Amino acid sequence: MSETRLRPRDPQYLSRVQSIWDDAHFIKDVGYELSSIEAGRCVTTLVIQKRHMQQNNFVHAGVLATMADHTAGAAAGSLVARDQVVLTLEFKINLLRPAVGETLVCRSEVLKNGKTVIVSESEVFVVKKGREKLAAKAMVSLAVVGSSYR
Amino acid sequence: MSETRLRPRDPQYLSRVQSIWDDAHFIKDVGYELSSIEAGRCVTTLVIQKRHMQQNNFVHAGVLATMADHTAGAAAGSLVARDQVVLTLEFKINLLRPAVGETLVCRSEVLKNGKTVIVSESEVFVVKKGREKLAAKAMVSLAVVGSSYR
Amino acid sequence: MSETRLRPRDPQYLSRVQSIWDDAHFIKDVGYELSSIEAGRCVTTLVIQKRHMQQNNFVHAGVLATMADHTAGAAAGSLVARDQVVLTLEFKINLLRPAVGETLVCRSEVLKNGKTVIVSESEVFVVKKGREKLAAKAMVSLAVVGSSYR
Amino acid sequence: MSETRLRPRDPQYLSRVQSIWDDAHFIKDVGYELSSIEAGRCVTTLVIQKRHMQQNNFVHAGVLATMADHTAGAAAGSLVARDQVVLTLEFKINLLRPAVGETLVCRSEVLKNGKTVIVSESEVFVVKKGREKLAAKAMVSLAVVGSSYR
Repeated sequence: MSETRLRPRDPQYLSRVQSIWDDAHFIKDVGYELSSIEAGRCVTTLVIQKRHMQQNNFVHAGVLATMADHTAGAAAGSLVARDQVVLTLEFKINLLRPAVGETLVCRSEVLKNGKTVIVSESEVFVVKKGREKLAAKAMVSLAVVGSSYR
Repeated sequence: MSETRLRPRDPQYLSRVQSIWDDAHFIKDVGYELSSIEAGRCVTTLVIQKRHMQQNNFVHAGVLATMADHTAGAAAGSLVARDQVVLTLEFKINLLRPAVGETLVCRSEVLKNGKTVIVSESEVFVVKKGREKLAAKAMVSLAVVGSSYR
Repeated sequence: MSETRLRPRDPQYLSRVQSIWDDAHFIKDVGYELSSIEAGRCVTTLVIQKRHMQQNNFVHAGVLATMADHTAGAAAGSLVARDQVVLTLEFKINLLRPAVGETLVCRSEVLKNGKTVIVSESEVFVVKKGREKLAAKAMVSLAVVGSSYR
Repeated sequence: MSETRLRPRDPQYLSRVQSIWDDAHFIKDVGYELSSIEAGRCVTTLVIQKRHMQQNNFVHAGVLATMADHTAGAAAGSLVARDQVVLTLEFKINLLRPAVGETLVCRSEVLKNGKTVIVSESEVFVVKKGREKLAAKAMVSLAVVGSSYR
């Protein structure tokens, strides 16, 4: 159930979102990759490594949460004006199944494209031997702010 | 508003929580440290580095969320039996202020010590020049499960 | 993205869910109606009246939240055993658009059918002159407990 | 952990919040009462009746959620300018203990007094034979908007 009309205010949104992605230190450090971006939607991936796990070799909830949050932000960021950025106000994530596999894929889409607050939802899938399972789902609220915050 | 009676079921809870902490790969990788643990409460810290930041040099929401989640889990983990562990079911975090400073401190306490589900809350403070500010607050639900999940 | 296999443990789930619905005083009092129930899914409706509104004639967030919660519970309740009921552990709701119209329709489905915790999501639509708009979306965690709680 | 400086922008905030309270139809209908209001804080009560209950004679989660949301809004509303109102963006509530008793008391306070978004937290207590127990806790985000929304 996504927004029916999602028109980006900035025609150069692709390069802008890519550039913000490239500058996000923690995202680079953990190893998330931007797979695709379009107006109001974003897909990201992570190749699961030992360092992403908790004590029981499930992927840590924090790895899933960071991915759900940041991908939601990229989906929202595609819709704002050139001199705006988005900052997470809050999110909630439900961990639905243990994340055990080779890769994580996160798909986010904007549910509400507001002027001051954008709401996205994110689904994080774990891929094991080619089979995808929904590992976590999040709803994320983002503030639209001036790019002095960038 | 914490639980009035928080009696750990396992008298050896300190060493058990410490040992689970030491085995959590992602927590070690990001650099969180366990400062103190008592029955139903836990405090952790993180020395903020460049790699923890987003594009604007605020600490990334994912770093705050991971800390809120894991510290809540350690507070809850102090209360379960020796053959039990806790797994996060869900959490919600509100990012209240930009996290800019030298150190993060997270304080978690158990609000409800249930047999199958424990609820903790976490406050994450950013410390800048010796002054603490509340950067984020989270409520976390954790399932109590058999230690085969450990 | 619903659960692929949602098999009710109780073949009499329809009459059981209907009977719990009929006994829920607050639901009767506000005026919600059960439209349809199947394994892991539920649809409910509410004819909007003045008494459901806040000061500005939008439907009150509490009316949307109660509907999202209770419909999620009915979807979950369809899947448990005859001697079990579900109790809400927590939910989070995003209010996406002002709810102004003649009717509310809530559609809930189970995302995770766990033994001790079931997770449902609910979408609440407002219908105005025959056109549906997504007014709110919620994720709900429910504990599966013995029917002594019924 | 409340905001250290909570200065209302409107010196007439008491009468303004009271007036909005009096105009909220659903709140009147369910029976909530405004007990006290000060800058950034609000307390409300509800005398529990049969019609507030679910099938098992616990107070319905929707009654607790509506109270947590609306009281949080009144706490936030005390801080905005005369020509502004607040609208709930989202909230999350954890139901911690069955609400069985004679009265509900909700205490809300503002955690972050932002220009466009205010965050409050609400604790809902159930009072039984004079003894208070924490039944639910919520975090609520509210948008600050022009009073055309009132």
